[in-house]
Amino acid sequence: MYRTHTCGELRIENAGQTVTLAGWVQKSRKLGGMTFVDLRDRYGITQLVVDAHAAEELNETATSLGREWVIQVTGQVIERQSKNPKMPTGDIEISLSEIKVLNKANTPPFTIEEDSDGGEELRARYRYLDLRRGPLQRALRIRHQIAHEVRNYLDAQNFLEIETPYLIKSTPEGARDFVVPSRMNPGQFYALPQSPQTFKQLLMVAGYDRYFQIVRCFRDEDLRADRQPEFTQIDCEMSFVEQEDVLNTFEGMMRTLFKNVLNVEIAERIPRMSWYDAMDFYGSDKPDIRFDMKIHEITDLVKGYGFSVFDGVDYIGAINVEGTASYTRKQIDELTEWVKRPQVGAKGLVYIKVNEDGSIKSSIDKFYTPEQLQAVADRLGARKGDMLLVMCGAKRKTQNMLGVLRIEMGNRLGLRDPFNFAPLWVVDFPLVEWDDETQRFYAMHHPFTAPKPEHLELFYSDKKEDLEKVCANAYDFVLNGTELGGGSIRIHDASMQERMFEVLGISKEDAEYKFGFIINAFKFGAPPHGGLAFGFDRVCSLFGGQETIRDYIAFPKNNQGRDVMIDSPSYIDQEQMDELFLESKAERENQ
Amino acid sequence: MYRTHTCGELRIENAGQTVTLAGWVQKSRKLGGMTFVDLRDRYGITQLVVDAHAAEELNETATSLGREWVIQVTGQVIERQSKNPKMPTGDIEISLSEIKVLNKANTPPFTIEEDSDGGEELRARYRYLDLRRGPLQRALRIRHQIAHEVRNYLDAQNFLEIETPYLIKSTPEGARDFVVPSRMNPGQFYALPQSPQTFKQLLMVAGYDRYFQIVRCFRDEDLRADRQPEFTQIDCEMSFVEQEDVLNTFEGMMRTLFKNVLNVEIAERIPRMSWYDAMDFYGSDKPDIRFDMKIHEITDLVKGYGFSVFDGVDYIGAINVEGTASYTRKQIDELTEWVKRPQVGAKGLVYIKVNEDGSIKSSIDKFYTPEQLQAVADRLGARKGDMLLVMCGAKRKTQNMLGVLRIEMGNRLGLRDPFNFAPLWVVDFPLVEWDDETQRFYAMHHPFTAPKPEHLELFYSDKKEDLEKVCANAYDFVLNGTELGGGSIRIHDASMQERMFEVLGISKEDAEYKFGFIINAFKFGAPPHGGLAFGFDRVCSLFGGQETIRDYIAFPKNNQGRDVMIDSPSYIDQEQMDELFLESKAERENQ
Repeated sequence: MYRTHTCGELRIENAGQTVTLAGWVQKSRKLGGMTFVDLRDRYGITQLVVDAHAAEELNETATSLGREWVIQVTGQVIERQSKNPKMPTGDIEISLSEIKVLNKANTPPFTIEEDSDGGEELRARYRYLDLRRGPLQRALRIRHQIAHEVRNYLDAQNFLEIETPYLIKSTPEGARDFVVPSRMNPGQFYALPQSPQTFKQLLMVAGYDRYFQIVRCFRDEDLRADRQPEFTQIDCEMSFVEQEDVLNTFEGMMRTLFKNVLNVEIAERIPRMSWYDAMDFYGSDKPDIRFDMKIHEITDLVKGYGFSVFDGVDYIGAINVEGTASYTRKQIDELTEWVKRPQVGAKGLVYIKVNEDGSIKSSIDKFYTPEQLQAVADRLGARKGDMLLVMCGAKRKTQNMLGVLRIEMGNRLGLRDPFNFAPLWVVDFPLVEWDDETQRFYAMHHPFTAPKPEHLELFYSDKKEDLEKVCANAYDFVLNGTELGGGSIRIHDASMQERMFEVLGISKEDAEYKFGFIINAFKFGAPPHGGLAFGFDRVCSLFGGQETIRDYIAFPKNNQGRDVMIDSPSYIDQEQMDELFLESKAERENQ
Repeated sequence: MYRTHTCGELRIENAGQTVTLAGWVQKSRKLGGMTFVDLRDRYGITQLVVDAHAAEELNETATSLGREWVIQVTGQVIERQSKNPKMPTGDIEISLSEIKVLNKANTPPFTIEEDSDGGEELRARYRYLDLRRGPLQRALRIRHQIAHEVRNYLDAQNFLEIETPYLIKSTPEGARDFVVPSRMNPGQFYALPQSPQTFKQLLMVAGYDRYFQIVRCFRDEDLRADRQPEFTQIDCEMSFVEQEDVLNTFEGMMRTLFKNVLNVEIAERIPRMSWYDAMDFYGSDKPDIRFDMKIHEITDLVKGYGFSVFDGVDYIGAINVEGTASYTRKQIDELTEWVKRPQVGAKGLVYIKVNEDGSIKSSIDKFYTPEQLQAVADRLGARKGDMLLVMCGAKRKTQNMLGVLRIEMGNRLGLRDPFNFAPLWVVDFPLVEWDDETQRFYAMHHPFTAPKPEHLELFYSDKKEDLEKVCANAYDFVLNGTELGGGSIRIHDASMQERMFEVLGISKEDAEYKFGFIINAFKFGAPPHGGLAFGFDRVCSLFGGQETIRDYIAFPKNNQGRDVMIDSPSYIDQEQMDELFLESKAERENQ
């Protein structure tokens, strides 16, 4: 036993007790002959004190302690003279009788404080030191807590956690697989799963009824800012369910998480929005509904009045940015430049201000009467002091740009408080979407998603425009403008699955080679089933009030897919290559 | 909602209710104009009945149902005329008013019963059908339950579940790593972890204090009968602990598992045995202590009396097989042949019987007086009706063979009831063991295990015989002759870790390349720490009363590391190979 208590545990009630603590030296300072040391562990910080009149050896040891040394101390709990109400242990300190240095420490390359002075690269290299900081300790604790609550909730709902294999078969479709050469099967490869999709469906065929798993998934993609090659999913599937059953079950889960982890009560019924409404009113399939500022189409009100920009497009839309009629010319110019950046890609921006005196001022004044502009303002419910921002072009593209602008204005106006939680179900997704480049359909969710029963006729049509109209019982869980999860009711009929592969332009042979086992499984009594998966890393980061996931993963990789702490990936021995029957065509850089 | 109840739920109290169920047709039979159907789901079986006087269409559908069809039925719960007390739902049946076929099924290639008529290979190919059988359903349920209890126990003990990466660095030492080519870092590879050992130690350095994870591990080994290339560990680590703290914590965990999962109370304190005693008395580092039959050395009693076989060896040992003095000559000959098989490798077997009349009969009568043989019998506590079995040779090898014979006799005498649970800690392992072939030391546990503090002088000695005497604070958890887990107190001092690599003959450069990050981490304030890992698959199988793990893994691989259901591993496209800068030197077999 190295300790009787942790550093977060002692209170005024413990005064008088002799205790032993162990931990890290957060800081130490001399004050009028006394030495004060803050001792830290995962549970908190406790103040230690060595009296000026204490034994010389004790005083010497106390003075010698460096930052991050690991020590074990024994002493008496005493009431502090100057209490610190911000610290749970702030009423007491330990008057030491003994200090034992368990391990010295080199001076850390950056400060181990709430905000470190170390750069990102340096902190990544010394991740084990960065992980000592409060924000990361809290991040991993909330991650543990969420996982624990998820498991308890699902267990109580009769879900079984069942592990699916990590060494599976490569079925590239969409993202790239990571592959693993097999030594015992020369020339052949396993793949790491992008998700356990087919396995969880097989578990439904196998009668497991309710499955879940908190599971690692792998995607060999060029990494965008906040993507990781390995990430974690809360993966779930249920049998004998319709969409409503799935949504209710996971609304319950999210409500429990918000309540038990954050003590936040969310709406009794999470709002639902069709994919079409999400696109039309928010220009996004993951609307942030913490604030309104909906997109409205105004084509009918402004097209055909001689303003050539509007007259030449299919779609004109606007948002009402409340209370910004006071924006200066300079501010509006800056906004215009902002939407013209390649990341947004707009050609320009039109404004219509409703001034405080009720007059209308717009960049397109000369093409429209004030009454015409007032009609636009009325449609968007603009009041005195508001300003409309207008964009035009192809419909979905313009809505998308308006959606990006809407989020930006939300940020600028402080409407996106990370601790205000506004969950949403987006439902009724199209089943497939056409890709002009490859001239084929792609599955909007994945190839196992079932068309809505009422759209079956369209699904078996061979007309492109019919297929585009097919909707799926697919759903996304969206929180504050971020997609946290999604799923669907699946196909459970072998012939319907074959039709789906046909729609996607996957040949019979290819489908048979890649998915033969699941098509075959469906012939032996597959139940109706559906499910969903949540991005666990992102659930954790949003619950922690952060947008980036990296702090919520103990050992993340950088944008090149490297772990700079362990220096991986790395070269392997030729012997190992030979055993795998592999030859590298890459030039070997100097190590 | 496809159902109002599951198939395991309805009782006599529900009589009169109209219910809807969904599930699989287990069987159906006609009896005097009535049709009886057993409907199955994960929760149980409910009997359905269609009356002879029911609507014609209903009768027709009921008659047409095939095995494993998926159906949805509605009807009234009624009391059965002939109750089945073996079934929880055996008091009732459902008098049907409606049957809806949700999915037909081809006839399964083997019977879906407690004992199937399908061979192993066939059942593996249709794993999703095999998984419908009772034994596998129970296996995966107990697995879920154990994982859940483990997590609840460890959470209550302040452990945090923290995920460590799967794409790490190849550090081959012992078993082979599976590797993963990196597309973004040409020519370089990740490795899949054999265990999260170094990461969990880094988490201790990072101050997480108590870590656990139920985590997949990977080993590219030639597979023995009951090994899998991917397997699951319950992996744990604690800071500021001594061996005693670790043992107590995990005794508590195992006690909780036995109680909550099996309703079995195990001893208040699990017995502990030194590695040396385990080897001397059981000829194994994982003794089965469900039965006694200890090995005793009798060298001093029988060597040097002119029996050349005994006179020419270092060690002579015996076990007392109680109640087998009645074994016939034929039985003893068969036993002798059994120990001579290459799997055991003995040269012969000597017996000494204590007959019911007190006389002694032995295969070595002519070399010893009855008094001398009686002295041997006395040492082993043999009583009338017992028989001693004696082997000789090099000490450890002979003990090992006696250990194998002991287990065999335990099996033959029915002393190894799988539902009698006898856990044991084996402690005080040697730190390293010498390998004659490669002329170097290998770590008995792993290179991060600390020598016992009282053996430090030996540890820094450069004499082989000194190093062989160094013990570690290492421990294995053994259940019924199977090692379920093991661990140790770790090295937390950079210079001691460097010494350990030196002892193991790992060069400074190699140690730096492979483990530099952890040696470095130890310089920044590493706490004393230790931990252990349990083989989760095996914990599950033993709790289920089985010796093989394959049924406790949803989708296992066969002895060639193949998943025959999905046909993996498999060839990948040349395009994918090119992207990875790889060329295969294996001949491509016809697919």
